[in-house]
Amino acid sequence: MLIQEATSSDFEEVWPIFREIASAGDTYAYPRNTSREEAERLWIHVPRRTFVVEIDGRIVGTYYIKTNQDGPGNHVCNCGYMVSSSARGKGIATALCEHSQKMAVELGYKAMQFNFVASTNDGAVRLWQKTGFYVTGRLPRAFNHPVKGYVDALVMYKWLGT
Amino acid sequence: MLIQEATSSDFEEVWPIFREIASAGDTYAYPRNTSREEAERLWIHVPRRTFVVEIDGRIVGTYYIKTNQDGPGNHVCNCGYMVSSSARGKGIATALCEHSQKMAVELGYKAMQFNFVASTNDGAVRLWQKTGFYVTGRLPRAFNHPVKGYVDALVMYKWLGT
Repeated sequence: MLIQEATSSDFEEVWPIFREIASAGDTYAYPRNTSREEAERLWIHVPRRTFVVEIDGRIVGTYYIKTNQDGPGNHVCNCGYMVSSSARGKGIATALCEHSQKMAVELGYKAMQFNFVASTNDGAVRLWQKTGFYVTGRLPRAFNHPVKGYVDALVMYKWLGT
Repeated sequence: MLIQEATSSDFEEVWPIFREIASAGDTYAYPRNTSREEAERLWIHVPRRTFVVEIDGRIVGTYYIKTNQDGPGNHVCNCGYMVSSSARGKGIATALCEHSQKMAVELGYKAMQFNFVASTNDGAVRLWQKTGFYVTGRLPRAFNHPVKGYVDALVMYKWLGT
């Protein structure tokens, strides 16, 4: 498993992963029909850095890191992670999360926050808890799940201890 | 007190209010030295709507309303409010908050969320609680206060009951 900063040509392989996850509509706050151009803007250009993870030369996952709030909040970062459904169960999300925490400290951040985790996304919630995050807020019915309707969204947080 | 949608020429009077509040650095997640151009982008152009409140023909306060999260989160809005220090204690912030809640329902939103309320901003916290919000999350040391250092930030939330 090789994690490295995304190059300008990597979005070609990131896009099918983004599209698969956004179009399912059950985990991320992106419109299900987000266009390729908008996805590239959101995932590659808006964030401070974007990384990809390769197995056997193929991109199977990606994450971004960005500043979560400006000014008095700019010591807290936010990350988003996506793993191709074809590569689940290999510990890739955990590896990306651990990589992102080291990167956050390297970039000078003191904490990491996830703003909008669907409470139905048990796998992600458990994984972030395993890597040191805790649920610090619950937003009642803030996530409109395509099958379950309005479900709670969670705010998760970790002080990075520097 | 007259609350109406901001016109393109209103930013002239909004800017001194924005600058006063942002430069204090103790309430909003804006850089203390935010430029006028960037302030206009953030307060007028990025939001879905922006309103101003006038007393005797002078703008003394303003608020914006925007969608807080896209896609599965786009039924929850976010607002920001600013009142000139020269016009405090007249119930203007309460009036703006009530106006924004009606506007939110009119625009089709089902809930309103404040993402980043400095826990030291007692007046605002009390005011939002009085208008039906509650603290649903606490972000430890997420707000870098210019005098008090790292203090907690609060996530506040209100379901608008539609």
